[in-house]
Amino acid sequence: MSKEITSRATDYSQWYNDLVIKGSLADYSAVRGCMVIKPYGFALWENMQAALDKMFKDTGHVNAYFPLFVPKSFLEKEEGHAEGFAKECAVVTHYRLKANPDKKGSLMVDPEAKLEEELIIRPTSEAIIWNTYKDWIQSHRDLPLLINQWANVVRWEMRTRLFLRTAEFLWQEGHTAHATKEEAVEEAEKMLEVYATFAEEFMAVPVIRGIKTAGERFAGAEETYCIEAMMQDGKALQAGTSHFLGQNFARAFDVKYSNKENQLDYVWATSWGVSTRLVGALVMAHSDDDGLVLPPKIAPVQVVIVPIYKGDEQKKMIDAKVNEIMKELKVLGIRVKYDDNDNARPGWKFAEYEMKGVPVRLALGARDLEQGVVEVARRDTKEKRTLSLEGIAAYTNLLLKEIQENLFSKAKAFRDEHITPANTWDEFVHLLDEKSGFITAHWDCTAETEEAIKEKTKATIRCIPLNNPKEEGKCILTGKPSVQRVLFARAY
Amino acid sequence: MSKEITSRATDYSQWYNDLVIKGSLADYSAVRGCMVIKPYGFALWENMQAALDKMFKDTGHVNAYFPLFVPKSFLEKEEGHAEGFAKECAVVTHYRLKANPDKKGSLMVDPEAKLEEELIIRPTSEAIIWNTYKDWIQSHRDLPLLINQWANVVRWEMRTRLFLRTAEFLWQEGHTAHATKEEAVEEAEKMLEVYATFAEEFMAVPVIRGIKTAGERFAGAEETYCIEAMMQDGKALQAGTSHFLGQNFARAFDVKYSNKENQLDYVWATSWGVSTRLVGALVMAHSDDDGLVLPPKIAPVQVVIVPIYKGDEQKKMIDAKVNEIMKELKVLGIRVKYDDNDNARPGWKFAEYEMKGVPVRLALGARDLEQGVVEVARRDTKEKRTLSLEGIAAYTNLLLKEIQENLFSKAKAFRDEHITPANTWDEFVHLLDEKSGFITAHWDCTAETEEAIKEKTKATIRCIPLNNPKEEGKCILTGKPSVQRVLFARAY
Repeated sequence: MSKEITSRATDYSQWYNDLVIKGSLADYSAVRGCMVIKPYGFALWENMQAALDKMFKDTGHVNAYFPLFVPKSFLEKEEGHAEGFAKECAVVTHYRLKANPDKKGSLMVDPEAKLEEELIIRPTSEAIIWNTYKDWIQSHRDLPLLINQWANVVRWEMRTRLFLRTAEFLWQEGHTAHATKEEAVEEAEKMLEVYATFAEEFMAVPVIRGIKTAGERFAGAEETYCIEAMMQDGKALQAGTSHFLGQNFARAFDVKYSNKENQLDYVWATSWGVSTRLVGALVMAHSDDDGLVLPPKIAPVQVVIVPIYKGDEQKKMIDAKVNEIMKELKVLGIRVKYDDNDNARPGWKFAEYEMKGVPVRLALGARDLEQGVVEVARRDTKEKRTLSLEGIAAYTNLLLKEIQENLFSKAKAFRDEHITPANTWDEFVHLLDEKSGFITAHWDCTAETEEAIKEKTKATIRCIPLNNPKEEGKCILTGKPSVQRVLFARAY
Repeated sequence: MSKEITSRATDYSQWYNDLVIKGSLADYSAVRGCMVIKPYGFALWENMQAALDKMFKDTGHVNAYFPLFVPKSFLEKEEGHAEGFAKECAVVTHYRLKANPDKKGSLMVDPEAKLEEELIIRPTSEAIIWNTYKDWIQSHRDLPLLINQWANVVRWEMRTRLFLRTAEFLWQEGHTAHATKEEAVEEAEKMLEVYATFAEEFMAVPVIRGIKTAGERFAGAEETYCIEAMMQDGKALQAGTSHFLGQNFARAFDVKYSNKENQLDYVWATSWGVSTRLVGALVMAHSDDDGLVLPPKIAPVQVVIVPIYKGDEQKKMIDAKVNEIMKELKVLGIRVKYDDNDNARPGWKFAEYEMKGVPVRLALGARDLEQGVVEVARRDTKEKRTLSLEGIAAYTNLLLKEIQENLFSKAKAFRDEHITPANTWDEFVHLLDEKSGFITAHWDCTAETEEAIKEKTKATIRCIPLNNPKEEGKCILTGKPSVQRVLFARAY
C-alpha cells in the first residue's frame, strides 16, 4: 500500500495529491476546479467544524444563513471589494433550460429566461449580508451583531489543488457589526486568537499570528489579521484571516445606527473565515511517506482494533475481549473502530490505517489473548509495544493525548528551526533556495519593494507578526531604513 | 406584541407570514425568491439537523460533499429527470466580470469568459453524484454505498413563500447504491420511516406514510414514498420523500458492478430528502394567534426565566436563585435563557417569548422568592401555575416532556378529525369546500382522472397510504371500479 505514495523527497506536490486521494479524503470531480469531499475527508471536516462552531458560540456568536446569490450591483458598491473579486466570479445569467429543437434529448439555455440583473455566486458574503444588516440595525441597542455562517462559496481559480485551492469550497464566514472602532478591532483580534487556538490545540499546527501588508489585505478591509503555518517543505500556508473592515461596508450599504446621544453614525465591521483549506494544511503539516498522520482530537477514527485469528473459535474469543475494550474506550469518549472484515488480511489493514492516519492501532491475536497482552502501535512515531490488556483503555486514552502533544511539538520544533534571519539580499536569496522556510528580514515598508521581492524570488511578506520586536535595520532590497523585521516565505 | 399578528381566522396565509417574520425565523432577501434564515430560525434548523444527522448515522450512513454545479450534459442523461428540472434551473454561463468601460464603477459580464458548457446550480444532486459513483463502484464489495449530503439547492420557483417554497433552500439528500432491487426498496422504506419518526417524535407532527401516484413521482424515480402532514387549515404538506430510483441513474451514468458470480449488472439506487420546508410545516402545525408554538425537543430555547424586581437589591437576590435553577436545568440538558435585560419590561418579554414559542416560561419576583414560589407558564395551553421553588428543575423537565406529548396528541386529534371519507362526487366537492382536511375516496387509477380532479377542485392525490386496507368501490369521478381509497387534499 505505502509503495503507491510518492515520497516527499521525490515530489512533495505529488506526495500531497497521493495522500489526499489514496487517503480517501477527496477526489477530483467532473466539474472544473471543484472537488468531491469523500466521507473520510468530510468526517474530518465535520470534527473541525464542531470544534470551531463551539468556540464561536462560546464567544457569543450565533449562526444564520444568507443567500447564495449576490446581485451584481451589490458587489459593485464597495469599490475595493468589487475589484478584488470581479475576476473570479461565477455568473448566473439565466433561470431556465428548454428542449433543444435541433437536437433531440438535449437541453439548451432558454434565451427568454434571461435575468434582468446577473447574479454572482457568492465569493464571500459581505455585500449580501451588509445589504441585510441595513434592515436589522437602527440603534445602538441592535449592536453588536455577532453572526456566523457555514456555507459554500465559489471563486473561479485558474489553477486548483485539492483542498488548497478549489473553485468551490466550504467555509465559515463571521460578519459582525459594532458601535465603535475599538470594539470592532477587539473582535477581529479575538477571532484571530480563536483561529490560532483551534489550529494549535486541535490541528496541532503551530501558527504565527500577524497582520498583512496593505498589498495582501482582503479586498475591502482596513486591516487583515492572519495566522500563518509552515508546511514540511518550508512553504507558508495562510490558515485563517480576520478582517477589520472599518466603516467601508456600512458606507457602501448605508448602515447607520443612532448612538446613546441619538446621533447617527456608520457601523463598524469585521469579517473572518476559515475553510476546507485547513484540511490541506493538516495533511501537509504532519503526514509522512506512509500516509496521513492525523491529530487525535479531530481524527474521524482515533483507535482501530484489528483481530488476528484463524477460525471461528479464535474469532469469537477475540470478539468478546474487543467488545469489552470498545465499551471502555467509548465510555472515555474515544472514537473506535473494530475492523473484523474477513476479506482483508491484517497486514493489508495495517497499511490501510497507516495510510488513513489513524492515531492508534491495537492488534489482538489469539496468542496475545492467552497471554493477556495486546500490540499497540502509534501512527506518529510508528513505535509498537506489547502491553497488558489490563488497563489498556486508560493507557490508550493517555496515549492519544501524548500523540496530540507530540505532533504539535514536532511541528513547532520544525517550524522554529526553519525561521531564519537574513541580513543581506544574497543571504535572503540563498536561504530561500537552499534552506527553505520562513525568513525574517528588514523591509522599507513600500508596496514597490514588496512587489519587486515577490517578482524576483516568489517570496511574499506573509505577515508582520503581532508583538513584533522593534529593531533598527536596512531593507534587504533597497537598503532604506526599517524599524522591524517582517516574515517572508514562499506560500501556498 | 400579539396584536400585530393577523389571526388564523382572518387570513391564514398572512398569519403564517407574520409568524415567520415577527417570530424572527426568516426574512425576505434582496434576491428574488431567496430568504435569509435569521439566527433564531437557523438555531431551530440546527436542532432539526442534529437529530436527523444522528438518525442517519445510526442507520449506517456517512456524510460527504459533492459539487454545487451540474454540467448541463449530465442533467440531460436521465430523460425524466431532465424534463422534471429543466424549467427551474439557475444557469451559470460565465466565470468573470470586468469593469464596464461605458460606466465608471460598474461591472459587466466579461463576454470572453463564457463557459464552454453551461453549469446548472444543483436542483438536486443525482446527476453529479451518479457520475461520481461510476468511479467508486466496481464490485459487490463496494456496495452498499450509503451517503448523505447536507447542502443548498436551487429551483427557480415562480411563486415563493418563506420556508415553504424558496428558490434556494437548505436540505439533506441521501444517495445510496445497492446490489439488489430488494435492498434498495428496503432502504427507501427505511428512510421514509426515519423521516416519519423524526416528524412525529421531534416535530410532534403526525404524518401519513404513503406512496405517490405516477404523476406525482420524483422525476427519475420508479417509486416515490412520502410523508404527508396536515396543517391547521386542513391543507396537506409533503414533509419528506424517499425515492426508489430503480436502475435509472445507473443506466444513465453507466454504473455497473460485478456480483459474486463475477457478472456485471447495473446498480440499484435510492435518494431521499427533507429540507428547510420542515420549518414551515412546524410553524403551521402548532402555532396560534399569539405566535409560534415550538416543540420542546427542537426549540432553540426550551425555558426562559424572567425576573420581576425593583432595584438592585431585589435583582441580586433573584439572580442568585436563578443561577441555582439554571445550573440544575443545564445538568438536565435543558436549553435555558435568563432574560434580565433591563431595557424591557416583564410584560413585553412575556409577549416576546410567546411570539417566539418558547415552551416554558418561569417568572420570578421578589415576593415569590420570599414565599419560595415561582410562576410557571406553558406556551402550548397558556396555563399558568404558581409552584414551589423546591424541585422546580425536575418539574420543568417533566413539563417539557408533557408539552412535547401534548402537541403531538393535539395535532393528531385534529388530523384524525379532518380525515373524512367521500363516496360521491358531490360529497367530495362539498367536503373540500366546507370542512377542509384530507378526504379518502375511490379513484380509477388513471392519470386522466387524477388530472381532471385536480383541475376541477385543486385537490391532488397526496398518497396511497402504506398498508392501505383493500376495499371495493367506484371512482368518485368516473364511477369505474376501484380496489382501495386514496388520500386527497389541497396542498402546500
